[in-house]
Amino acid sequence: MNRLRVGVLGAGRIGRLHTANMEQKLAGVEVVAVADVLKDAADECAAKFGIGRAYGDPADALGDREIDAVLICSSTDTHATLIEAAAHAGKHIFCEKPIALDLGAIDRALTAVERAGVKLQVGFNRRFDPGFARARELVADGSLGSVHLLKITSRDPGPPPLDYLKVSGGMFLDMTIHDFDMARFLVGEEVEEVFAAGSSLVDPAIGELGDIDTACVTLRFAGGALGVIDNSRRAAYGYDQRAEVFGEKGMVQVGNPKAHAALLSDERGKHGPANFHFFTERYAEAFVRELQAFVDAVREDKEVAVSGNDGRVPVVMGYAARRSLELGRPVTLAEVETGFAG
Amino acid sequence: MNRLRVGVLGAGRIGRLHTANMEQKLAGVEVVAVADVLKDAADECAAKFGIGRAYGDPADALGDREIDAVLICSSTDTHATLIEAAAHAGKHIFCEKPIALDLGAIDRALTAVERAGVKLQVGFNRRFDPGFARARELVADGSLGSVHLLKITSRDPGPPPLDYLKVSGGMFLDMTIHDFDMARFLVGEEVEEVFAAGSSLVDPAIGELGDIDTACVTLRFAGGALGVIDNSRRAAYGYDQRAEVFGEKGMVQVGNPKAHAALLSDERGKHGPANFHFFTERYAEAFVRELQAFVDAVREDKEVAVSGNDGRVPVVMGYAARRSLELGRPVTLAEVETGFAG
Amino acid sequence: MNRLRVGVLGAGRIGRLHTANMEQKLAGVEVVAVADVLKDAADECAAKFGIGRAYGDPADALGDREIDAVLICSSTDTHATLIEAAAHAGKHIFCEKPIALDLGAIDRALTAVERAGVKLQVGFNRRFDPGFARARELVADGSLGSVHLLKITSRDPGPPPLDYLKVSGGMFLDMTIHDFDMARFLVGEEVEEVFAAGSSLVDPAIGELGDIDTACVTLRFAGGALGVIDNSRRAAYGYDQRAEVFGEKGMVQVGNPKAHAALLSDERGKHGPANFHFFTERYAEAFVRELQAFVDAVREDKEVAVSGNDGRVPVVMGYAARRSLELGRPVTLAEVETGFAG
Amino acid sequence: MNRLRVGVLGAGRIGRLHTANMEQKLAGVEVVAVADVLKDAADECAAKFGIGRAYGDPADALGDREIDAVLICSSTDTHATLIEAAAHAGKHIFCEKPIALDLGAIDRALTAVERAGVKLQVGFNRRFDPGFARARELVADGSLGSVHLLKITSRDPGPPPLDYLKVSGGMFLDMTIHDFDMARFLVGEEVEEVFAAGSSLVDPAIGELGDIDTACVTLRFAGGALGVIDNSRRAAYGYDQRAEVFGEKGMVQVGNPKAHAALLSDERGKHGPANFHFFTERYAEAFVRELQAFVDAVREDKEVAVSGNDGRVPVVMGYAARRSLELGRPVTLAEVETGFAG
Repeated sequence: MNRLRVGVLGAGRIGRLHTANMEQKLAGVEVVAVADVLKDAADECAAKFGIGRAYGDPADALGDREIDAVLICSSTDTHATLIEAAAHAGKHIFCEKPIALDLGAIDRALTAVERAGVKLQVGFNRRFDPGFARARELVADGSLGSVHLLKITSRDPGPPPLDYLKVSGGMFLDMTIHDFDMARFLVGEEVEEVFAAGSSLVDPAIGELGDIDTACVTLRFAGGALGVIDNSRRAAYGYDQRAEVFGEKGMVQVGNPKAHAALLSDERGKHGPANFHFFTERYAEAFVRELQAFVDAVREDKEVAVSGNDGRVPVVMGYAARRSLELGRPVTLAEVETGFAG
Repeated sequence: MNRLRVGVLGAGRIGRLHTANMEQKLAGVEVVAVADVLKDAADECAAKFGIGRAYGDPADALGDREIDAVLICSSTDTHATLIEAAAHAGKHIFCEKPIALDLGAIDRALTAVERAGVKLQVGFNRRFDPGFARARELVADGSLGSVHLLKITSRDPGPPPLDYLKVSGGMFLDMTIHDFDMARFLVGEEVEEVFAAGSSLVDPAIGELGDIDTACVTLRFAGGALGVIDNSRRAAYGYDQRAEVFGEKGMVQVGNPKAHAALLSDERGKHGPANFHFFTERYAEAFVRELQAFVDAVREDKEVAVSGNDGRVPVVMGYAARRSLELGRPVTLAEVETGFAG
Repeated sequence: MNRLRVGVLGAGRIGRLHTANMEQKLAGVEVVAVADVLKDAADECAAKFGIGRAYGDPADALGDREIDAVLICSSTDTHATLIEAAAHAGKHIFCEKPIALDLGAIDRALTAVERAGVKLQVGFNRRFDPGFARARELVADGSLGSVHLLKITSRDPGPPPLDYLKVSGGMFLDMTIHDFDMARFLVGEEVEEVFAAGSSLVDPAIGELGDIDTACVTLRFAGGALGVIDNSRRAAYGYDQRAEVFGEKGMVQVGNPKAHAALLSDERGKHGPANFHFFTERYAEAFVRELQAFVDAVREDKEVAVSGNDGRVPVVMGYAARRSLELGRPVTLAEVETGFAG
Repeated sequence: MNRLRVGVLGAGRIGRLHTANMEQKLAGVEVVAVADVLKDAADECAAKFGIGRAYGDPADALGDREIDAVLICSSTDTHATLIEAAAHAGKHIFCEKPIALDLGAIDRALTAVERAGVKLQVGFNRRFDPGFARARELVADGSLGSVHLLKITSRDPGPPPLDYLKVSGGMFLDMTIHDFDMARFLVGEEVEEVFAAGSSLVDPAIGELGDIDTACVTLRFAGGALGVIDNSRRAAYGYDQRAEVFGEKGMVQVGNPKAHAALLSDERGKHGPANFHFFTERYAEAFVRELQAFVDAVREDKEVAVSGNDGRVPVVMGYAARRSLELGRPVTLAEVETGFAG
């Protein structure tokens, strides 16, 4: 196959980041159009990267016959609809997470994708971080033996604006969703049950919204392994995302990359740098690898690395965690599915 | 006060370890007698360390007027009775953990201690590990601000014999009890509620005993902070005991001491040593500091570092965890106390 | 000032790397032309990055009135002549290291630059590595007090081809030259005397060329501080470049960035990744910052970060090291200058 | 053989440290007498450790027929004479370093030992540090392939008193001597040539004594490998002793043990403990292993781990370094031997 011709839907921060990566770092791909409901944003992005066409309506990009695939980088509430439309237009799809906060909408989108026979990769970029990817490799190749325990730490430097939090679906669907995906990815098994504990300790205003900002979520995997995720909306020392998989033969720990490798020793001790404060630095490499994987999967007609179902299950886990927090007891994923079906 | 004159009750592994430390590393103390129901063991220990008197009955040591304090290092089932007897005899007491597995027995022992006005320090040695002690210091001096999250990892190199496990009270009372103490120590607050998840993954024989060998326990502290303890009966890479306290201003992480400081780099990567495989190596320093603290507390009439209540609460937490595992829901410590009272 | 308009002279590996960085990562700059004596290479590079003009002769770029500055990325033997020509043409200059292996040629080039009043920055990229830059900062801000000792380790994954080595000027001028620059940069003082020890241990063919592949060079700084550089042409575990500055108040150590942050623990120990094997990975960030510094210096008419003299002195140090190795005694930089003058 | 019966000659700091270790941590040995020219010191030490006999004259210990071996822990100027006397008395000998500062005296002592057929182990304790021992193991078992480069860092927290420095023989014989031994030990080869650079930067008073406090010493090994030792009399961050052996297949690095394993992360970065400030903490384990090796070598009639010649060569290296510093050129060990012979 020739170079994959991509249309980027949404010229905001993440859309521009992907565009820059495609233009500068990826092989086998070219961006032929960018679309944004704010036409100015589309124009500006197209000018900056020398992209031929800028659209003020994503539908125009979907109708563009020279586009093979679209990147859905618009706001979350538009994802599911755009997936459906893109599938109908026969475009392959890369969609930022989450697909939707509504399981019905997700399922309609996935059905459309399946019927159209196009590829869909969901944007769980952390899987492509070299450290997390290496951990998965060690689990998959048997270096750890069977998995007994999983630990994931995920803490942000600071909370998003309250206006954003109001429509975010709550901490489990907005923030922990990444960790739910990581749990499934690292262990390679499904989670059956979730117990969530949460507090509002970072900012009382978050508690007043009915949300939490600090959480511990216990997971039970199908094979009996246990897992725990801890989250905070504010880490004074920067972006903190680590994982640990413990099995019968050993353990792998994934730490944070360092901002630099200089260490000061003085009479008070040894002093190294704080963590990165921006996810674009923390995951710079991961964003590149993620899109390259998508481009390669389409061009070589291979299975995508993060499927539609991989985009769906963490949403179910988020609902289970939310219900567990409300009910004060463990909740199974089956309960959520049933409740949804009912 | 002159040197504290100590009688050691129990000449097994831990009794001999404490005796060696007192004889060789501590200031202000001398061992004047050792007692063991196996008189030969008492004789051998006395000979090895040049101790004047060996008794075949702990009661003889309690009647010895030249003894100021006793170290209770005998089997767990004798602890509570010996505490009571020692208190009646007016001896200060250092007792290995746990005081007892029965809350009634613990309460009788603590009452006796209170009435006699003697000191009682319980052997939660890990508090005296230089790393854990430093973490506590950073919490206590406000370096972390208010505490939001606590994480404790505690994994043993291998499970004890099944015969021991049968009478151990189960994983939470035998192994997690140390971590329950560490949780209270590090955060400086009481835990109100516990949720326990457990599996038998290490050895099916442990599961057949009705016990577990792998656990995740979620804690909720009085002030809203959350905590999680993970345990395993077998870590292929050695003794693994770490903690992490996360607060509004930062985080402290306590790792494992290294067996040595040599690191090999070759074409396959960088390679350092596995962890220690024996708790006597892992906690060598802690055992020395623990007893020195006891000796100093008695000689200077100060409050002991680990009180009778500090010995009691982790047992309550162990019961709460056990009940949570049975019921599949969080259990409060108040429920355990009430159940006990009723 | 408007965007700096740059012509790239030399479309080889390093020329393309800088072009990609300017096009994608830098602010305030645009590449308007690329020149290479292999016209095809210039054409291909221009096409890839959407650059308007491709020249088969660098002189054409120097005559291009829409070019403000040139990047000299051609082979070493052309550097000095191109600097002179560019200076005469009134272009600002960024030149890859070394300026030349001949001090006379260097001096003619620097004189031309001075007369023309243009800026010249020399490509010692390692100064811009975040770790080394942080170390310099700690020296400069007094955190270490006065400097007593400097240690630099610089080892390559493998030696270059023998054909390259033949014309490289020898290890000290080809490889150690980076470390000579680093020494001056980190300490912020001039070196007065050099003692070099060398061996051929990596590959006998290198010894047969009269060159060495393993070296220890001792430095004496003007203020009495001592330094040592160790070099090897082959490190089995990858690119190894570290430094340590030790002073009256403490020490800073700069390590290698890690390929990823995953660490495996098993019964044999703990295992992390080997170092990077390519300088483009090891110094990815440094290359970006280096050029941004040049662009900013020109646009804001500031002093460049790495001056012509900074490009000259390490060559003198290389000659001193070479002479020290021949004579088996320390050699002062003054001796080299005198010998040259004489 | 029965337990080795030891007489300790010299009841100062190091004599008491060894006595405590023998009494408390070693197997197969008992201390039967302690001697010190300050009889009170001998008495006090004997009382503290329950040792039967205290002598005011080392000669009395040498005449004591119940003593199998002596530990020479008295002041350096008495070592050689005591070795000779002990050898004549048929006692096995452990002697603190250095044997003497005078090569003639050393040779007379070693001749006496050889004629008497007793064992002599010299107190280069650092060889027994678990990290350095592991590094030697990796060299010896071929994990690194042939050795190309050696680096040793050795910095003390602060200089000894000037009165001590006056009679110490200078930095190379007092401090670097440990590193000269370490160099031979780690590489397993003899050094042929030494080049020393030194400065007085820590304290001008040291310079006024004609001594240095900061040094870089380059070593050339018989097989072509190069080495470098850096020394300082004052490290603000504590005792700093590291080594690095680099070979064709990889590298081993030996770091400093950590005072504790707690790491604080806050908005300014990550902060760990400073190094130990006392060699008794830094080398606690090494001192135990060193004496156990001696006891075992005598009891099992094995070769000692650190021979008389191992005690002699570092003194020759110290002289070579001193001469190199005076002459400003490399000096071979052969020159020193010849000069001595002449």
